[in-house]
Amino acid sequence: MSTVLRNIGMLVTQDDDLGTLTDAALVLDGGRVAWVGPTAAAPDADTAVDASGRAVIPGFVDSHNHLVFAGDRSAEFAARMAGTPYAAGGIRTTVAATRAAGDDALRARLASLVGQAHRQGSTTLEIKSGYGLSVADEARSLRLAREVTPETTFLGAHVVAPGADPAEYLALVTGDMLSACAPHARWIDVFCEEGAFDGDASRAVLSAGVAAGLVPRVHANQLGPGPGVQLAVEFGAASADHCTFLTPADVDALASSGTVATLLPGVEFSTRSPYPDARRLLDAGVTVAVATDCNPGSCFTSSIPFCVALAVREMHLTPSEALWAVTRGGAAALRRDDVGRLAPGARADVVLLDAPDPVYLAYRPGVPLIAAVWKDGRPITI
Amino acid sequence: MSTVLRNIGMLVTQDDDLGTLTDAALVLDGGRVAWVGPTAAAPDADTAVDASGRAVIPGFVDSHNHLVFAGDRSAEFAARMAGTPYAAGGIRTTVAATRAAGDDALRARLASLVGQAHRQGSTTLEIKSGYGLSVADEARSLRLAREVTPETTFLGAHVVAPGADPAEYLALVTGDMLSACAPHARWIDVFCEEGAFDGDASRAVLSAGVAAGLVPRVHANQLGPGPGVQLAVEFGAASADHCTFLTPADVDALASSGTVATLLPGVEFSTRSPYPDARRLLDAGVTVAVATDCNPGSCFTSSIPFCVALAVREMHLTPSEALWAVTRGGAAALRRDDVGRLAPGARADVVLLDAPDPVYLAYRPGVPLIAAVWKDGRPITI
Ligand SMILES: [Zn+2]
Ligand SMILES: [Zn+2]
Repeated sequence: MSTVLRNIGMLVTQDDDLGTLTDAALVLDGGRVAWVGPTAAAPDADTAVDASGRAVIPGFVDSHNHLVFAGDRSAEFAARMAGTPYAAGGIRTTVAATRAAGDDALRARLASLVGQAHRQGSTTLEIKSGYGLSVADEARSLRLAREVTPETTFLGAHVVAPGADPAEYLALVTGDMLSACAPHARWIDVFCEEGAFDGDASRAVLSAGVAAGLVPRVHANQLGPGPGVQLAVEFGAASADHCTFLTPADVDALASSGTVATLLPGVEFSTRSPYPDARRLLDAGVTVAVATDCNPGSCFTSSIPFCVALAVREMHLTPSEALWAVTRGGAAALRRDDVGRLAPGARADVVLLDAPDPVYLAYRPGVPLIAAVWKDGRPITI
Repeated sequence: MSTVLRNIGMLVTQDDDLGTLTDAALVLDGGRVAWVGPTAAAPDADTAVDASGRAVIPGFVDSHNHLVFAGDRSAEFAARMAGTPYAAGGIRTTVAATRAAGDDALRARLASLVGQAHRQGSTTLEIKSGYGLSVADEARSLRLAREVTPETTFLGAHVVAPGADPAEYLALVTGDMLSACAPHARWIDVFCEEGAFDGDASRAVLSAGVAAGLVPRVHANQLGPGPGVQLAVEFGAASADHCTFLTPADVDALASSGTVATLLPGVEFSTRSPYPDARRLLDAGVTVAVATDCNPGSCFTSSIPFCVALAVREMHLTPSEALWAVTRGGAAALRRDDVGRLAPGARADVVLLDAPDPVYLAYRPGVPLIAAVWKDGRPITI
């Protein structure tokens, strides 16, 4: 089935050669972009959509999510907003609920969250494990995540499992748990932070993951300075995520590497924390992505448009830089070149905005501006 | 046509007697709430809706909007975010475009914005004039606004019309323009601020408006300290809006008055300004409302859920206080007791959330959580 979108007022392809077109058209065919050009020259297709002068952009690439879980932590959120400090036991609440949930319940919750993300324009989602923390529960989480995305990340090293000895748990994560999870995962991740996994433990996790054929990414420098970013660069990780507390050496290391800095401003919004210094990273030449970090504890938004508004308001990205960060940036953080841009051959992951220009994503914060979404060339029901 | 909503997991009536009910039902009939009680005891109705354990709240009362305009100022927004100071000529851009637009174009834009607000749960909207600034254009703006809401506000005193002599313009606003506009308006408003209308001019505007049968409300103390709040209290205004820069005497005056302080945190978000000190107002006993101030210049959000998230994150309201501020608070700011709460006899303006608890409005910022809306007992198409 082929589809042609005509009368696109502004087509932001995010493709280095095609750039931004006005009065443009786009043809989707067989799950791929087949043609880009002026409306007047557009070929016919099975289905025609009139964009009526509105803007079209690539589907968002949300490269950081924790969507396999059960339970409710809204009361913890309300307490935190009232001034109660972030409870270290927060993740453990979710672990207990997740372990107790049946496959069908987890799958239904996951499907609901994924559907919501798709309707908000996120056509590529990375999804991590990390609320199972046992061999069976981590493997199950990844098996369920794999049903909805190829971008699955083994995060057994989220926290040490409740009641476990840290050294024994590390041996499990790098041993039997990894063996059970690797078949369902593309990525290996570790929460490298004081109170979670230190530099040596993180190195062990990443080394074992790489040996099992996984590609590294790292939760780095979220709550304070630490070795996470340097480790990410050393391992050639696709991304160092959070990057809130960086030394000049961390910024230099990122700038001279192929590792993307993935910023997650929804977390700072929802935990009332200082935002990362995005401009310092951009000015140093670091590749910056922005993602949601959708999870039940520190940030339960799945709205990339909201994160774009925060990126502009709080992190001083220009609207164009913010849009790049949630499309090409997210794609770079997942080492993908078939998503995040619209050019012949790229995936037919497309967002039609209820706005003439994507600057409206920041100009109209909170307003649902996603008029239509295509994933693999097929319309998502809004 | 009557409708019964059953299996409401949490029904936040915002009614002082009914409070919050669990496993509740709600019957809408003839545009009014007809019955509230436990699901097991709910009477039948023409249509039945299963809330499936989700939360139901009153429709939002958005008591501050500027929705009659033409033109586009997204480039001004992008420039401001890049560090260009707020241009005083901003409003004038919109005035020129609005004057040049035909009735049908203005009506279509207004209908689009109103529909968007309804779909986001705002069932009561106040709408101001203020982008015409001539007798004919202000009267037209209010006539169009009156087609969509009874809560219309004459704001000829938004800024001095481009090219006009301030004293002559004041005479016009309090004379012929007021006469032409009063039949279409409920409220009289003035932008009492340095660079707009000073204390004496504001007093003249409010006095003339009251003499013409309108009820006062005031844009007060947004950009700096000034006489706005004290004037609002002196005139017994329904609301003093913005309240960003207040002296202790201003807070005392509000606390001992019937004037609501309407906070508009979307403006501070979109202009990167400091937020008002909401806790100081609440702790002093002031009635606080939160509204969007949807307008093309300083804040183009129409999302009350977004403003709830800001109220919690940035102004330290509890989620319950924030919900009160956008329902009962907004109703108080419009001197209405038939909206903002759900009790027999109140208007059948109802929001079904895609969440078990309205705390999710702040817990999941940016996520479209409005599952269904009824206005006057009739469903709004989401
Ligand atoms: Zn994370
Ligand atoms: Zn206003």
